[in-house]
Amino acid sequence: MSLRQKSDKMGSSNPVIGLLGGGQLGRMLCEAANPLGIDIAILDEKNSPAKQAHNTNRHVTGSFKDPVKIRELAARSDYLSVEIEHVETEVLEDIEKNGVEIKLADGSVAIHKPPIHPSWRTIRLIQDKYLQKEHFRTSKTKIPIADQMAIESGESALKSLQEAADKFGFPFMLKARKGSYDGRGNFKVNSAEDFAPAIEALGKLPLYAEKWAPFVKELAVMVIRTEDDEGNLRKCVAYPAVETIHEDSICTKVFMPPRGVDDNVCEQARKLACDVISTLWGRGVFAVEMFLLEDGSLMINEVAPRPHNSGHYTIEAVPYMSQYKAQLYSVLDLPVPDELTPRVSSSIMLNILGGAAPNSHHKLARLARTTYGDDFDVYLHLYNKESKPTRKIGHITLTGFSSIEDLEKAAEPFISMVDQIREERLAASAEQLRPQEEAKASNKTNPGGANPVEGNNSDQPLVLVTMGSDSDLPVLKAGLDILKEFKVPYALDITSAHRTPKYMMKVAGEAAKKGIKVIIAAAGGAAHLPGMISSETPLPVIGVPVKATHLDGLDSLLSIVQMPRGVPTATVGINNSTNAALLAIRILGSFIPQYQEHMSRYQLQMEEAVIEKGGKLRTGGDVAYLEGMKKTK
Amino acid sequence: MSLRQKSDKMGSSNPVIGLLGGGQLGRMLCEAANPLGIDIAILDEKNSPAKQAHNTNRHVTGSFKDPVKIRELAARSDYLSVEIEHVETEVLEDIEKNGVEIKLADGSVAIHKPPIHPSWRTIRLIQDKYLQKEHFRTSKTKIPIADQMAIESGESALKSLQEAADKFGFPFMLKARKGSYDGRGNFKVNSAEDFAPAIEALGKLPLYAEKWAPFVKELAVMVIRTEDDEGNLRKCVAYPAVETIHEDSICTKVFMPPRGVDDNVCEQARKLACDVISTLWGRGVFAVEMFLLEDGSLMINEVAPRPHNSGHYTIEAVPYMSQYKAQLYSVLDLPVPDELTPRVSSSIMLNILGGAAPNSHHKLARLARTTYGDDFDVYLHLYNKESKPTRKIGHITLTGFSSIEDLEKAAEPFISMVDQIREERLAASAEQLRPQEEAKASNKTNPGGANPVEGNNSDQPLVLVTMGSDSDLPVLKAGLDILKEFKVPYALDITSAHRTPKYMMKVAGEAAKKGIKVIIAAAGGAAHLPGMISSETPLPVIGVPVKATHLDGLDSLLSIVQMPRGVPTATVGINNSTNAALLAIRILGSFIPQYQEHMSRYQLQMEEAVIEKGGKLRTGGDVAYLEGMKKTK
Repeated sequence: MSLRQKSDKMGSSNPVIGLLGGGQLGRMLCEAANPLGIDIAILDEKNSPAKQAHNTNRHVTGSFKDPVKIRELAARSDYLSVEIEHVETEVLEDIEKNGVEIKLADGSVAIHKPPIHPSWRTIRLIQDKYLQKEHFRTSKTKIPIADQMAIESGESALKSLQEAADKFGFPFMLKARKGSYDGRGNFKVNSAEDFAPAIEALGKLPLYAEKWAPFVKELAVMVIRTEDDEGNLRKCVAYPAVETIHEDSICTKVFMPPRGVDDNVCEQARKLACDVISTLWGRGVFAVEMFLLEDGSLMINEVAPRPHNSGHYTIEAVPYMSQYKAQLYSVLDLPVPDELTPRVSSSIMLNILGGAAPNSHHKLARLARTTYGDDFDVYLHLYNKESKPTRKIGHITLTGFSSIEDLEKAAEPFISMVDQIREERLAASAEQLRPQEEAKASNKTNPGGANPVEGNNSDQPLVLVTMGSDSDLPVLKAGLDILKEFKVPYALDITSAHRTPKYMMKVAGEAAKKGIKVIIAAAGGAAHLPGMISSETPLPVIGVPVKATHLDGLDSLLSIVQMPRGVPTATVGINNSTNAALLAIRILGSFIPQYQEHMSRYQLQMEEAVIEKGGKLRTGGDVAYLEGMKKTK
Repeated sequence: MSLRQKSDKMGSSNPVIGLLGGGQLGRMLCEAANPLGIDIAILDEKNSPAKQAHNTNRHVTGSFKDPVKIRELAARSDYLSVEIEHVETEVLEDIEKNGVEIKLADGSVAIHKPPIHPSWRTIRLIQDKYLQKEHFRTSKTKIPIADQMAIESGESALKSLQEAADKFGFPFMLKARKGSYDGRGNFKVNSAEDFAPAIEALGKLPLYAEKWAPFVKELAVMVIRTEDDEGNLRKCVAYPAVETIHEDSICTKVFMPPRGVDDNVCEQARKLACDVISTLWGRGVFAVEMFLLEDGSLMINEVAPRPHNSGHYTIEAVPYMSQYKAQLYSVLDLPVPDELTPRVSSSIMLNILGGAAPNSHHKLARLARTTYGDDFDVYLHLYNKESKPTRKIGHITLTGFSSIEDLEKAAEPFISMVDQIREERLAASAEQLRPQEEAKASNKTNPGGANPVEGNNSDQPLVLVTMGSDSDLPVLKAGLDILKEFKVPYALDITSAHRTPKYMMKVAGEAAKKGIKVIIAAAGGAAHLPGMISSETPLPVIGVPVKATHLDGLDSLLSIVQMPRGVPTATVGINNSTNAALLAIRILGSFIPQYQEHMSRYQLQMEEAVIEKGGKLRTGGDVAYLEGMKKTK
């Protein structure tokens, strides 16, 4: 009935799978399809990564969100599938139910209904994370998920958040229900003070709150789901469990098997992943992301209904049935194995993310292209995408013939370089925060008539603000604002004591020579950075303890403040970068009058502001004052 | 200077390799290039297999033998390479020396000289097999090749062949110097009687003669050759040695490691292959085909300056550096490993050749798609080429985690199916030899007024001609001609006693019921077919011993004639299918008068011909008679 003879499950002619989206997942799907004689018709922009790796006259140019184009794709495909879950499910539902009209050779019109896998039902469910987890929670199989509640929008939001706080206690997670991935669209709510910023950060999206579940590791399991054409589940088969590392809300590293996790936990993870996926609809591969909690139990985080970067490693580690081949096989209903045993002992996948410059990743690609190991192999995958900061433009897979620990050692040069590229990128992005125009303008006007420090010019940073991780940057923001307000030239850097120890030592050792007068160092957890920098510089070092995942910042504080005699670190309050900046300015002000004068004015303004408030409270009373506070929020 | 910024060995942008030819080798080169961010511009027809697997606006449509198109390709490529050695080396030489003109953005013209790998010198040398081997013979390193001599063409050819016979003795090989591959263009000359047929078979090609070197096995080794831009050899690195099986002059099967060959012989083969390739020019991968002789020594057969089907197995067996990746790396002068250790214990590659029908190979592809092993894996590679008989349209690679013997057992269903497809194809092609039109015409005219056999019609085959291998078909040709001359309806089949025992038994068991009156069975070596068929049928069976590689047919003869009491086989002379056919006709003639009458006429004609010859010889004398013999040749 279709324009194209139905392919009878690869009996006689090459089947055509129409794919919504032509990014790197589609590209790797094409790379798997080419040797198998499977045709992939891609709906995406003209030169999308997937189209580059597969040449067919069946591609459709346009947006995979455009219903007209989706119908055009359906008309020329034997099957439909998706590379991304953020598609319009209405049109898929309509195609499944009513088909698309196609013109036959004799000019007559027929109805063509290509099977759609995974089902639009699955895609629609998964698009709403809250509903997705409600579905799992209420399924017959007991699937552990975090307690959650939907948050009302608009004026009722604050009230709804308070209900969540009452129900879950602090902290809890506030999450966008739709449109987010890779941990984006999440906000940790530590107290009622965070309500407004959280709502501001997540925008006007529908939200839900989730009980805080402190986890030890993030695990993921890819699952192949097959069912017959009537929708009866055939089987779910799980790939090995992996450990995923997220940085800057992006998955950056994947370890197979997970490091330091019991085999039986990994087996439980696979079993659980199959339980989860068996509740869904349609054929295909699915990623199941989960948390390993402190008590050793597992909790489902979320599901992606498609190949996933936590499954890239299967290309080389399960070469007879990579996740891409599995996607093709399951969509076409070809038989898949009952077990997915890797052909290597261990594997590490490192995403190549766009760096500070368009060529930042080149050295990493070069390292991957030119490294050969006796007991490990290195595979480079470039997606031929334009490099932009944080964009996934490729990945590297290492496979090993011994333990994951040995492979991690072998991978050290790669991991260091990945981290270095990340830190350069973060530094560059932080640098953009710095109001260079202001700084330059202030130079020209020689502000405050101050005595310039000998050998200094105002482009010369006086304060070095450095941090152990870019995740500390939001905490430092308030302090940086103060430095800007005081027109203090500063430099930014990321110098991880544990990931870039040599670089940290170099930065600390050279700071004084470079004209830096004060160093502000922020770190969380085992916050060694401020003390270590202090060990290597004669400059005053101010440490900002950053509240990390656990212990509410107490760990950071003690790590910074409890320095041994002889190596002082000026420690400020937890997350209190404002005070760190003001302390730095006071230090500068002792020698640069303009800063001292400015500091005096600043202190005066603070005083005046408090006096004014006291007056208001005294005259207006507490009720009116509280009313006024609500309005300004 | 080029239209395209020079890519500085993958420093900043994707390099473009221009490839002459876009068949399956180019396709697999593209499959290797895609994840590495390497662009391949292909010169070939519009929808060639390679172009399907890589989409770029740099492809050129046209013939890879067209100098204009080759220059067009050169203008848009950073490097040039070839998929096939049968290209015009003159234009490549000219491009290397004089470059191609390209228009710059400002309208001016510049000269662009993309490096060409392998060198046109290597390609040109290899195109002439005789010169190729002379080159190896006269190289500094001692490279064993068969004694050879060039054969003059035209009128001097016979004299030249006689010189070869005097020098090498019988048998010797006559080979085309150019344009042949896969063992095509070869003729075994057993005696002076073969001179004329050999020259007829090989056409007007320049020829050379080679001393007969009876070999035990054919081996092959892929070698990576690298050199710097000044042409100084960097290194040659060899892949593991493999055993290659050729059938119908086509490589059909490859075994890694070779079965029953000592490890040190394999190491010698690798060493020798490196010696051979180090005498050539340019970078790239090269296939070195060699013979393992009876005394355990190795002898070089020939070299292919490109990826080769004896190296297909490396895609999965040496996954970190397949022959295709190696081709890319060497052309681009990226570092290649010092050792090429496989990541599996064993591997078998089976070429998928087009069968009797366009879908003959589908069952094989299906088997490859749907077989999963515990200690072996199966990989399907389809080239998306139209299926034609004997065309290479795909291949299957099996990889194993134990011995090659175990893997061969696991591969048995695949090997059987490959053999079966081959036998169907050969049977169909033999069937085409049968003059169906004639047979039908004779039916209509009810020739000779013979009494038709009860229940018979003239479409009903009376003789079944079957053989153990299609390689027996040329021997049977003379007998088939006799059957045609006598208008005997016959059926053809291939029923290998060893490769298709069940099928053979079925055919034998059913022949009588199907109306067959006589069976002619041809076989060589351990020629069990005629006797085995005889065991399973009440019909008279005529055995034709076919001269196999060794022992001049004596093995075949004894296997057929020495049947135990109770199971007779009518054995004719070695290779004497004429007599087998005449014997069959005599058998038929005992019951079908037309054949007996025809046989009588035939015998009479033979008698008359000899009497005539005797008369000539008696009257003209021996000198004139011999002169006349030469003219009729």
